[in-house]
Amino acid sequence: MKVAVYPGTFDPVTNGHLDVIIRGAALFDRLVVAVTENPSKTPLFTIAERVNMLREVLKGLPAVEVDSFDGLTVQYAKDQGACAIIRGLRAISDFENEFVMALTNKKLAPEIETLFLMTEAQYSFISSSAVKEVALFGGCLKDMVPPLVEAKLRSVFRQRER
Amino acid sequence: MKVAVYPGTFDPVTNGHLDVIIRGAALFDRLVVAVTENPSKTPLFTIAERVNMLREVLKGLPAVEVDSFDGLTVQYAKDQGACAIIRGLRAISDFENEFVMALTNKKLAPEIETLFLMTEAQYSFISSSAVKEVALFGGCLKDMVPPLVEAKLRSVFRQRER
Amino acid sequence: MKVAVYPGTFDPVTNGHLDVIIRGAALFDRLVVAVTENPSKTPLFTIAERVNMLREVLKGLPAVEVDSFDGLTVQYAKDQGACAIIRGLRAISDFENEFVMALTNKKLAPEIETLFLMTEAQYSFISSSAVKEVALFGGCLKDMVPPLVEAKLRSVFRQRER
Amino acid sequence: MKVAVYPGTFDPVTNGHLDVIIRGAALFDRLVVAVTENPSKTPLFTIAERVNMLREVLKGLPAVEVDSFDGLTVQYAKDQGACAIIRGLRAISDFENEFVMALTNKKLAPEIETLFLMTEAQYSFISSSAVKEVALFGGCLKDMVPPLVEAKLRSVFRQRER
Amino acid sequence: MKVAVYPGTFDPVTNGHLDVIIRGAALFDRLVVAVTENPSKTPLFTIAERVNMLREVLKGLPAVEVDSFDGLTVQYAKDQGACAIIRGLRAISDFENEFVMALTNKKLAPEIETLFLMTEAQYSFISSSAVKEVALFGGCLKDMVPPLVEAKLRSVFRQRER
Amino acid sequence: MKVAVYPGTFDPVTNGHLDVIIRGAALFDRLVVAVTENPSKTPLFTIAERVNMLREVLKGLPAVEVDSFDGLTVQYAKDQGACAIIRGLRAISDFENEFVMALTNKKLAPEIETLFLMTEAQYSFISSSAVKEVALFGGCLKDMVPPLVEAKLRSVFRQRER
Repeated sequence: MKVAVYPGTFDPVTNGHLDVIIRGAALFDRLVVAVTENPSKTPLFTIAERVNMLREVLKGLPAVEVDSFDGLTVQYAKDQGACAIIRGLRAISDFENEFVMALTNKKLAPEIETLFLMTEAQYSFISSSAVKEVALFGGCLKDMVPPLVEAKLRSVFRQRER
Repeated sequence: MKVAVYPGTFDPVTNGHLDVIIRGAALFDRLVVAVTENPSKTPLFTIAERVNMLREVLKGLPAVEVDSFDGLTVQYAKDQGACAIIRGLRAISDFENEFVMALTNKKLAPEIETLFLMTEAQYSFISSSAVKEVALFGGCLKDMVPPLVEAKLRSVFRQRER
Repeated sequence: MKVAVYPGTFDPVTNGHLDVIIRGAALFDRLVVAVTENPSKTPLFTIAERVNMLREVLKGLPAVEVDSFDGLTVQYAKDQGACAIIRGLRAISDFENEFVMALTNKKLAPEIETLFLMTEAQYSFISSSAVKEVALFGGCLKDMVPPLVEAKLRSVFRQRER
Repeated sequence: MKVAVYPGTFDPVTNGHLDVIIRGAALFDRLVVAVTENPSKTPLFTIAERVNMLREVLKGLPAVEVDSFDGLTVQYAKDQGACAIIRGLRAISDFENEFVMALTNKKLAPEIETLFLMTEAQYSFISSSAVKEVALFGGCLKDMVPPLVEAKLRSVFRQRER
Repeated sequence: MKVAVYPGTFDPVTNGHLDVIIRGAALFDRLVVAVTENPSKTPLFTIAERVNMLREVLKGLPAVEVDSFDGLTVQYAKDQGACAIIRGLRAISDFENEFVMALTNKKLAPEIETLFLMTEAQYSFISSSAVKEVALFGGCLKDMVPPLVEAKLRSVFRQRER
Repeated sequence: MKVAVYPGTFDPVTNGHLDVIIRGAALFDRLVVAVTENPSKTPLFTIAERVNMLREVLKGLPAVEVDSFDGLTVQYAKDQGACAIIRGLRAISDFENEFVMALTNKKLAPEIETLFLMTEAQYSFISSSAVKEVALFGGCLKDMVPPLVEAKLRSVFRQRER
């Protein structure tokens, strides 16, 4: 059974992430979507909130599992029995960070492969941070995030206004 | 059984290609290395010579098969029953061509995924064209191509000198 | 009256070009779509064929005019009384050529501005050359070019096969 | 009457910004230079100080107006009756952020176009942050900012030293 | 006697930096490795610790000197009687920052040249921040930093855990 | 005595090349400007014409020598007793080719260093091919090439017209 891990911050999950998950799930017997912290950014949602949103949104996909971890990604992937880490590439700016991360991970754990999928064109302009900025100013989020996430974002920013 | 296709010009196969093949083969039950023409370049070796070099070099890998094709890559992948096309990414300059190709292929055949592996650092400066230029001027090809390919290149350029 | 010129090879016009034309036309009183040769490429269609396809496809847009020229683009723009040249930017790889061209044109004719529009996501993977390659192998061109251009491409490649 | 908005942080305005303003003003009947906060950076000057510097520096240009706003840029542009947002592109690194922003804005308000001008070569190395760093260490700011801004920067950093 | 300065944060020195130092030292009569703060990052090691690590690691190289400074790099280079500043280029993402810095420095001090060396492939994925992240999670640092630096990093992160 | 080689096609020499030569000459005791063929392009001027133009233009610089060669650049550099190859970097698009070339050369001859200088902003849009295209259509070449080269280009294109 081939297992892959899709690690990310998912703060919150966007339609671009969903596209990567659906396409990645078709290639492996089990795909673990693994929520982690990005040490250089203050998150909007807690790890638990992010895991819950992902679980809700992904519940129709039996081969996909949602989890969270901290520590080295390759160590987590080994613990899961994974042979691959999957990542979405949206654009050039992603490329270099991902390149460095993939090479560092290969160095730390040569038996785990990093596989990249190119984000489809209509999702290429969506990022979790753009989504949060649009939500902050009350702009329309349709086509950017699932309805459940849109509702969550609206409620967070409404609360802040008070 | 999950099948993948690794299409390319392989004129000639380099150590960078070999690295992608070995890593890709570990992720699929069968990997088809498929030689094709690049319509915008005049090849040094014929399709048959390129297939033969690949077969010779890859003979220790039972799950890897060598073939050639012309036409649309996605059509060939479908004919092989593949769920994925694999490609190596060496650097930024590769990125954009590969991005356009992957999106076009996704449009033409949504059921086939393109997966990218980052070329490892020590192979990132090797390209078939650099290899041919170094060979043309008699430079050292060690660490760039397998010995069999080096011998082939030397013999081609020796013949030309006469 | 503000006039702009949109120069290009248009071999053939794609849905990406149409998007730029429609958006550009909304910003100027007159927009001249100007067909020119790219000296480094052998065209598939003659200048006359390309002008005709563009005229057919753009006939609903009264403020848009189709023309052809050779020589320096800035000289042509001056002759048209234009204050701006417009160009679409699809991706990083376009960026650098366009940057050099824009700076050279600024040097040659400081009174003419080059304005860039970012190609919308769904057109970002479409290029005239990709279109021709897909057409050559009989792949589906829907969403890439207008129906009239698809028919023209099919007929050209059918003729070649004979 | 065609109106455009040129939004930015302008902390402080540089000769590169001025170049974009002068060139942009020639293409529209009215150009609104609109100061906004960049939520991810702590500004050196207040919004009011930035607006004042811009007004002082731009007072010879009747078709140019200086304003400030918060909220979504496209909403502000609509409120101004603008058909376009203009932005300067200095280099590749700008390209991707601008690309994402332009596509997000297009999604939020399809009737407003983002137009890009390439910064002229001699301004391409000037950024507000580089200017502040040079000023901090007392380096020469000639050719980077207007004299008024240079004086303001000197006085800010002299005050800090005390 | 030709003198060059190699400025950097060196928080901590990596094998990639060492490669640049060794190669740079071969081109000049004296090479000053000059530690400075990066105002936008909180350092892990103090300036003094970084200078000491560098001195320890470089003690076999007589033409190399280790120092620290604050202020403008070009002013420091002038004070050292240097004709050149050297910098390593790892990848595209470095390129743009370095480009802007080199042009700004050229403007501030035309008599001092910035020279770039391309980092060798095997070091191209090593950055001080990646090294710190790997160390934080207890990953293997072999081939990334000299043994002395590895020991220092281990001891810093062990202390923090307590 | 430190010697460097500056290899290139110089078809024809531009003001950008001159800037690199003048700055490079200040760093070495002897700088050899070495004309070579670019196998993938048809030159406008013969090797001899290019050498003569360079000699004429550089005659005020005693430490600079003009020569031509074919074969591997590193072999030529060794034959000249050089410790370094110098190259100008104009922009991102140069970066990747130069990166691959520098790493290949390092592999072939580890004792020879490739050093890069960033082209100054005002020369960054000048390339030999842009110069030839502008000359072909009779555009103004001032600030792009030395007067002698401008005259040569004019005479070549006048002759062709006949």
